[in-house]
Amino acid sequence: MLESFKDICVHLLRVMALILKFLFLLYFFPILSSPHQDDHPLDPLTPLEFDQIRTIIKSSHVNPTLNVSFHYIGLDDPDKHTLLSWLSNPATTTKPPRRAFIIARVNHTTHEIVVDLTSHSIVSNQIYTGHGYPLLTFEEQIAADMLPRSYAPFRTSISKRGLKLEEVVCGSFTVGWYGSKDKPKRVVTVMCYYLDGTVNLYMRPIEGITVWVDLEKPKIIGYRDRIMVPVPKASGTDYRESEQKPPLGPKMNRITVLQPDGPGFDIEGHAVRWANWKFHVSFDARIGPIIALASIYDHEKNDYRSVLYRGYVSELFVPYMDLTQEWYYRTFFDAGEYGFGLSATSLEPLRDCPENARYLDGYIAGQDGISVKIANLFCIFERYSGDIMWRHTELGIPGRVVTEVRPEVSLVVRMVSTVGNYDYIVDWEFKRGGSIKATVGLTGLLEVRGVKYTHADQIEEEVYGTLLAENTLGAHHDHFLTYHLDLDIDGETNSFVKANLQTTKVADNSSPRKSYWKVVRETAKIESDARIRLGSKPAQLLIVNPHKKTKVGNPFGYRLIHGASVGSLLSEDDYAQIRGAFTNYNIWVTPYNKSEKWAGGRYTDQSHGDDTLAMWSLRNRDIENKDIVLWYTLGFRHVPCQEDFPLMPTLSDGFELRPNNFFESNPVLKVRPQDYSSPNCSS
Amino acid sequence: MLESFKDICVHLLRVMALILKFLFLLYFFPILSSPHQDDHPLDPLTPLEFDQIRTIIKSSHVNPTLNVSFHYIGLDDPDKHTLLSWLSNPATTTKPPRRAFIIARVNHTTHEIVVDLTSHSIVSNQIYTGHGYPLLTFEEQIAADMLPRSYAPFRTSISKRGLKLEEVVCGSFTVGWYGSKDKPKRVVTVMCYYLDGTVNLYMRPIEGITVWVDLEKPKIIGYRDRIMVPVPKASGTDYRESEQKPPLGPKMNRITVLQPDGPGFDIEGHAVRWANWKFHVSFDARIGPIIALASIYDHEKNDYRSVLYRGYVSELFVPYMDLTQEWYYRTFFDAGEYGFGLSATSLEPLRDCPENARYLDGYIAGQDGISVKIANLFCIFERYSGDIMWRHTELGIPGRVVTEVRPEVSLVVRMVSTVGNYDYIVDWEFKRGGSIKATVGLTGLLEVRGVKYTHADQIEEEVYGTLLAENTLGAHHDHFLTYHLDLDIDGETNSFVKANLQTTKVADNSSPRKSYWKVVRETAKIESDARIRLGSKPAQLLIVNPHKKTKVGNPFGYRLIHGASVGSLLSEDDYAQIRGAFTNYNIWVTPYNKSEKWAGGRYTDQSHGDDTLAMWSLRNRDIENKDIVLWYTLGFRHVPCQEDFPLMPTLSDGFELRPNNFFESNPVLKVRPQDYSSPNCSS
Repeated sequence: MLESFKDICVHLLRVMALILKFLFLLYFFPILSSPHQDDHPLDPLTPLEFDQIRTIIKSSHVNPTLNVSFHYIGLDDPDKHTLLSWLSNPATTTKPPRRAFIIARVNHTTHEIVVDLTSHSIVSNQIYTGHGYPLLTFEEQIAADMLPRSYAPFRTSISKRGLKLEEVVCGSFTVGWYGSKDKPKRVVTVMCYYLDGTVNLYMRPIEGITVWVDLEKPKIIGYRDRIMVPVPKASGTDYRESEQKPPLGPKMNRITVLQPDGPGFDIEGHAVRWANWKFHVSFDARIGPIIALASIYDHEKNDYRSVLYRGYVSELFVPYMDLTQEWYYRTFFDAGEYGFGLSATSLEPLRDCPENARYLDGYIAGQDGISVKIANLFCIFERYSGDIMWRHTELGIPGRVVTEVRPEVSLVVRMVSTVGNYDYIVDWEFKRGGSIKATVGLTGLLEVRGVKYTHADQIEEEVYGTLLAENTLGAHHDHFLTYHLDLDIDGETNSFVKANLQTTKVADNSSPRKSYWKVVRETAKIESDARIRLGSKPAQLLIVNPHKKTKVGNPFGYRLIHGASVGSLLSEDDYAQIRGAFTNYNIWVTPYNKSEKWAGGRYTDQSHGDDTLAMWSLRNRDIENKDIVLWYTLGFRHVPCQEDFPLMPTLSDGFELRPNNFFESNPVLKVRPQDYSSPNCSS
Repeated sequence: MLESFKDICVHLLRVMALILKFLFLLYFFPILSSPHQDDHPLDPLTPLEFDQIRTIIKSSHVNPTLNVSFHYIGLDDPDKHTLLSWLSNPATTTKPPRRAFIIARVNHTTHEIVVDLTSHSIVSNQIYTGHGYPLLTFEEQIAADMLPRSYAPFRTSISKRGLKLEEVVCGSFTVGWYGSKDKPKRVVTVMCYYLDGTVNLYMRPIEGITVWVDLEKPKIIGYRDRIMVPVPKASGTDYRESEQKPPLGPKMNRITVLQPDGPGFDIEGHAVRWANWKFHVSFDARIGPIIALASIYDHEKNDYRSVLYRGYVSELFVPYMDLTQEWYYRTFFDAGEYGFGLSATSLEPLRDCPENARYLDGYIAGQDGISVKIANLFCIFERYSGDIMWRHTELGIPGRVVTEVRPEVSLVVRMVSTVGNYDYIVDWEFKRGGSIKATVGLTGLLEVRGVKYTHADQIEEEVYGTLLAENTLGAHHDHFLTYHLDLDIDGETNSFVKANLQTTKVADNSSPRKSYWKVVRETAKIESDARIRLGSKPAQLLIVNPHKKTKVGNPFGYRLIHGASVGSLLSEDDYAQIRGAFTNYNIWVTPYNKSEKWAGGRYTDQSHGDDTLAMWSLRNRDIENKDIVLWYTLGFRHVPCQEDFPLMPTLSDGFELRPNNFFESNPVLKVRPQDYSSPNCSS
């Protein structure tokens, strides 16, 4: 009896212990009740979801006998306010619906379809009849590229040039819009190149031939063989390791990055936590990498504070400056026409990213809607480049020397997009001091024009480029990348402030000085107040939260530290510039609007420029004390030089978003120096 | 006998073998006959040489009873042409004489002395009677800083403020020149700070008191206690690791750089060889680090080709924008007044530089001429930050994927100069692709002004700064660093070319395009052609060798890729700006002139601006097809923010000198990818 009572007691105690343990877990690990890692509302679409979308569209609304091709499938962004409400209180708020936005060509018409993935239904299906066409698919480009080979006039042209057809490869080029009022066909030009001893096709253009292809058939609808120009030779163009002949080099000793305890970040699904940062990394076929919900932990406030709701490269504009007949229309929009995400490449471990990197895969949909995996789409790594986060040596105190130094270690998220010839390295870097740095590196292959010249002295006409090698002209061009930066500085309601540095004369002999500069702050009230061509006026550019101030009364803010001030030099009435009018200024600020996502407009191929950031901004909306978006355009002017031949070394630029009275004081003052020495190693 | 003959034969054979070995060495190691590592003509002065100089001056020309203080002792640069001749043919050419240039105050007069170290004699000794004074010595600053403590009115001021005298420390500030025509004394103001619980003296100014000290006596010659302002509190200002209270962090996993086979560079004396680069690194008390004779190996030409004869930070100009009586004159020249090299600090291994760094010591002379060692003055390390040197993924060839990637590894030479409160991190970075990047990082402590305000809302007057904490105002200021870049692009005779990118309208309907930009090259003929305020006009800036062209006819060149375009905003007639007139433009080009070394003039303290780069350049000399020097000024505008309190996170800017038709093609195409994975390690 006693024994049995003891048993019951022990049992009861065990049950109580379990209950306590459960309550303990419930209390201390609220994360358990937060959304599961696999279904963050901002996660990119999964292969399963791509399948669902395809099935739903194919089965329910569209006659399966019709020709359906998917030009864009992406997440239909949840409403920002709904998402933020749910994230701050997932228990009692409704989760935003999971939806996809699809642009499909159905029977040669553009459809905009919204699919609800929770209810497995089509929410809307609208036909688009305006200007412009959606993203080109890979499949239709490949189909177009194959057409010339079996086209008799092209075969004649090749044979006339003494070239071997089997060594010819072709690529599809968007044709732009040059003022025509007719509704054009979905057409590309196909330009061809010669291999025959190299893989560097871009250095061997077969100049003078233009093939127009109707993508919808697909069918050649125009052909011109205008001039014969020598094809630049293959020798010296191959960049493969296997093809290099001695002397190789220069030689280097081995170097690597070591983290004996592993990387210091966590990835759960697409959510990353590192040091004082947390953020979400996503991917889209059109715009590539998306950083979202970046917030930083503030020890003083014992909480994470929002910085960047979403940041991404919204559009790229790459106008060439060559007016010859085969070149004048080359004014590309790499996101809206080719897909900056579609063009993403698998990263090579130990080469594209250091040894301590971790990788994330990604998925795009083919033209048939079936998902395709891009392995190693992103890499994430901690960077220690030997830089110093802060330091000071104090010699001013008699009899003492004080030296304190903290090395800089940051976190990098990288993706590479290879849009045909060019490789764009897109980095987002997070620093413990609160900065977010965005850097883009340009490498890969130039677009060169074949010319008759073998020496610069022979050139007497305007050739629009630099002679890089015999018969090889590197055409002048620009690259503009327009970043969408939806900053939420400690909350959604922000203002844009130009802190103008104004030279002030001291006229009244009140000081031995005759001048100084003062800060004249100007808060942008409407959109036109915030359009800025950089370089024109000394100013610091800030996004502030007008409602929240530091203890001593400065509004919380972040500052944009921009790189070189490069803007488009095309005249504003030029058709290409009308389409790329979002580069008329380096800076724009707009009120948040879910639909204003792609600076070049939804349908960029053959667009008329009636749906760009520049047009949206004409409404001149209020932007003071609103949820605002900063658009920043960085640019590269490319006057090619021989070092860019046959493959260009990386050229980088970027910008930094740096806290400015966001923290009460230096947020990394209390960072303890780590052990930066290596453990024992044997090679 | 036979035995003996055999012995002789063996002996003879041995002797012959030795002779052959010697001849072999002579033939294959011509380096043996080149100058010994310890006596490169550009090497900084050695401790032995400092001793020699002191002995020579004290004993031969100067009455030993006179008061002699050494304000500058540096290498008297060998004539460039003589040096280059000797370097190219050391066997048959005379080695340039080894000389030192000394600025000494002898019996309160400034002497310029040239000492020949080979002949142990004084070559010249001239008295300088013009405007301005030499560098301040540490010793005289320390002597000046100690004076207030025993000065009764100062003691009264301290006691009146309720402060403890033993917690007061002081610093010497140069006073500039504000138009007076009188010959001024060598005077500084001494400003004092309060410790009492912190080592961060700069955050605790004792405002309102100015002490004028005649450095030559040294003696207080003026005193003013104008206003009483609360001394900002100590709490939150200390930056020492030992003083930080939890929560510390954010925490990090360990990270280090590993080179299992050691670093890939060689240092012989002050000559560095790494990958395809070789250069000389030197040090000077006034200007700090000097990179010289940087040349790059060209496999095509099978030879080293010159790029940079000498590069260094020639002067720094740091004007504050605060017009109050204790602040208006704070317009510092950190090289010419305080010594950018004199202020160099010993680098902390594993913190200031990564584990794979190697260090060089340096020497400065004290006021008495005796050498003082600065251990770990330079660090040199290979940087692998995870960046990509070049890459491409080719998907355009049916049925194939080609991916080639080469990681970027560069070589960094670093020095840190702590000029009082500010720490400047000066990096010179060499890339295998031919680029030289110069970067400067600003960190350390702000100069703050004590104010009565504890909240921004209380401020109704112009305060010239940002309230950073209670009673602590971060004053607006700029930092300008003017680099002297004596580029020798494959030889001494070069030209400066502005490649203007000019928007060109297409008026004649010859193209569907309405505009493009073309490159309009403008070779600067005289100095005024090359004065440029950046940001005003789109252009690429090149130094070219007009005599040497690539095979296809482009002149060999290097391009300056500048950072943010920041220039001085002071009016040109302002006295500080007259003294800092070398910042009137970001770019200047001058013909090489041995004496035009220090952009702010030889005697910067209390200078009148009659010996600056701006004055030299008024001669408007020919610069086309000459040995020319490029002067580039980079700037930081500093509107302090709370994150800069109590110590500012590093803010960086820099520029790149990048080959532009210098090579026939991409010079790193043949770089083999290394093994970037780590060996087995145990921590």
